[in-house]
Amino acid sequence: MEKVKTAEVIVIGDELLSGETTDTNSTYLDAGLEALGWMVRRHTTVLDDVDAIASAIKASSKRCQLLLCSGGLGPTIDDLTLAAFASALNCGLRKDESVVASIQAKFEKLGRPMPPNNERQAMVPEIGEVIDNPVGTAPVFFAHLNDADVYVLPGVPRELKWLFKEKISDRINLGYRNVFRRSLKTVGRGESSLEYSIRNIIAKHKDKVQFGFRAIGVENHIKIMAMGSGAEDAIQVAADDLRGILGDSIYGVDQEILPEVVGELLIGRGDTLALAESCSGGLIAKQLTDVAGASAYFLGGCVSYANSAKSELLGVCESLLKRDGAVSAAVAEALATTGVAGPSGGSAEKPVGTVFIALAGPDGTTVERKQLIGNRSGVRENTALVCLELLRQKLL
Amino acid sequence: MEKVKTAEVIVIGDELLSGETTDTNSTYLDAGLEALGWMVRRHTTVLDDVDAIASAIKASSKRCQLLLCSGGLGPTIDDLTLAAFASALNCGLRKDESVVASIQAKFEKLGRPMPPNNERQAMVPEIGEVIDNPVGTAPVFFAHLNDADVYVLPGVPRELKWLFKEKISDRINLGYRNVFRRSLKTVGRGESSLEYSIRNIIAKHKDKVQFGFRAIGVENHIKIMAMGSGAEDAIQVAADDLRGILGDSIYGVDQEILPEVVGELLIGRGDTLALAESCSGGLIAKQLTDVAGASAYFLGGCVSYANSAKSELLGVCESLLKRDGAVSAAVAEALATTGVAGPSGGSAEKPVGTVFIALAGPDGTTVERKQLIGNRSGVRENTALVCLELLRQKLL
Repeated sequence: MEKVKTAEVIVIGDELLSGETTDTNSTYLDAGLEALGWMVRRHTTVLDDVDAIASAIKASSKRCQLLLCSGGLGPTIDDLTLAAFASALNCGLRKDESVVASIQAKFEKLGRPMPPNNERQAMVPEIGEVIDNPVGTAPVFFAHLNDADVYVLPGVPRELKWLFKEKISDRINLGYRNVFRRSLKTVGRGESSLEYSIRNIIAKHKDKVQFGFRAIGVENHIKIMAMGSGAEDAIQVAADDLRGILGDSIYGVDQEILPEVVGELLIGRGDTLALAESCSGGLIAKQLTDVAGASAYFLGGCVSYANSAKSELLGVCESLLKRDGAVSAAVAEALATTGVAGPSGGSAEKPVGTVFIALAGPDGTTVERKQLIGNRSGVRENTALVCLELLRQKLL
Repeated sequence: MEKVKTAEVIVIGDELLSGETTDTNSTYLDAGLEALGWMVRRHTTVLDDVDAIASAIKASSKRCQLLLCSGGLGPTIDDLTLAAFASALNCGLRKDESVVASIQAKFEKLGRPMPPNNERQAMVPEIGEVIDNPVGTAPVFFAHLNDADVYVLPGVPRELKWLFKEKISDRINLGYRNVFRRSLKTVGRGESSLEYSIRNIIAKHKDKVQFGFRAIGVENHIKIMAMGSGAEDAIQVAADDLRGILGDSIYGVDQEILPEVVGELLIGRGDTLALAESCSGGLIAKQLTDVAGASAYFLGGCVSYANSAKSELLGVCESLLKRDGAVSAAVAEALATTGVAGPSGGSAEKPVGTVFIALAGPDGTTVERKQLIGNRSGVRENTALVCLELLRQKLL
């Protein structure tokens, strides 16, 4: 087994420490680093402050072999990352003429003069290397410090992602992968009952792989992780054993999402789908149409939210369904939701979270009542999941 | 001005460093800490590893006066936070009988026997204090280390939020607020043109408040920040000056979101709204119905996604609109979208991102063509924003 090489991520910005903004760049970089062979051991988030940034960079560079920093490279006075990096490197700043030229060219292309404060972006540490950034004005910078190769990237997620993929990943690719993971995803099974049903599989494989559970609303994911050589095979064998027990309860793996899986099933069968949503208020249509190409199977739907709209819109959903069934070879299915999402509107008989889901197909209509937990948005999200899972089971 | 008291947050968990899970607990804690008078200076994310957790706790406890840790308190073998905290405190672990009793009571209530591994959750550091957790089995723990009061909280977001609010906030409330912020929110103005239009206001106030800009899709927020005594007044005066220049371009402040603002305008006028969505595929209906009480003004809508569904569904939206206009005193408005969200379907004349938005009201129908940037989900999000902003301007 190869020696594990470790990486850290530092993200920089006041807005990441004030409750305004959640850091998603680290999540993106973690996945990318793991795919290139690195084990990410730590994230640090610091303010736009030279001392805070410099001390975080210095400490990280002694703990890992690769350090990625993001943020604080803009043209305004609160962008201090390169000054801090220079301080950590114990060197001064120099104006890099290639960066000036690149920024000027970008403004010329836009037909606008370059504001003088953009020249601040060309001030880079005297030690190190500028990496061209064709997707923005912020310079990407590299230097070695202590034990680590250190890269400084912009904080704008679109720029960060492009630059990591196109400019950084080739330079840092270890050529092997050390950590392997797989998630098997289920809906509506309950964490402890799921764990109980697979206890023998866990016992059988626990020396080779690590199992974990993650509950997100009504979804339960089984996580399998292994490291080093043989890890992929060990995960595959464990996953096969889990499939032997759980079968079709597993709707997907890793990045697969339920609306996509349902879409593929519909395509495979040549079926089409129409929706009538009340309590989910457009959420299921939104999730289905998040998937590119959804128009191949998703005809459309009604959001019959106010009572006054229900009779008229629902009559039409029905006619849409009938008409399409008549004029096409496809069999149209229809899915409907109604319920109490809260916070008000609940009663003793139908408390908040009570949801009815109807599924109509060529072989009749079924209705299920579910009691879902969560706040308003939780009830709605869970309604959508339960609904799509019901459809998936029907399509199988 | 009071001396600034600083806080840090440590979040613990392998899934936070593998690209699987984005840490949102820190964002929640940041906002809560700031409201209680604290200045949050750093987040650290570490693996489920005793040495990594202990060294992070020790280092943080020397840099701040308050340290909140989250995660790694579950019953399974990968939950190591209390063992690590004991190591940082240089003490052993003891079994806390109150925690055992509390966990047993929770299982009794569920009518299930307590699995033996839940006893692990009762092993707490010998030094420090157990804080009762009525919403879960994980113990909440407090101890003082170096310069900091250290609290250890569960990682499950629902539990963390409840415990922070109900059990921790009173204990750590400084009784004053040090950092004040306000965001003024606009749609579709462009960052640099927005900055240019308020340059005199920035110059006038820059000694008392700090200005920042944040672009999220087609939204542009102006951020105002000030610290210490007089900060609130300084922000209010600056915000008033900005409103003097920007007027109705500002749709809302801080947590206000556009669907909510539009809803309030509709209620104020006694108007109702119907939707016909094509490229936005249910997203606008979803956003409107995210707001509790939306049925007071949102009648419903059609998601006419497939071409075959357009004629039939749209005829009905029209009749819904007419009918409601006839039977109620309210004036019904109708909003429609169609466009190319991508990734395919674009042409030279109508590239990906081309969107048409129609707004029909008692005084006629207007149609706007917009060219929006972004990937599929970006185009759809931006379509929804531009659409709702168009309606807001019409309602004003």
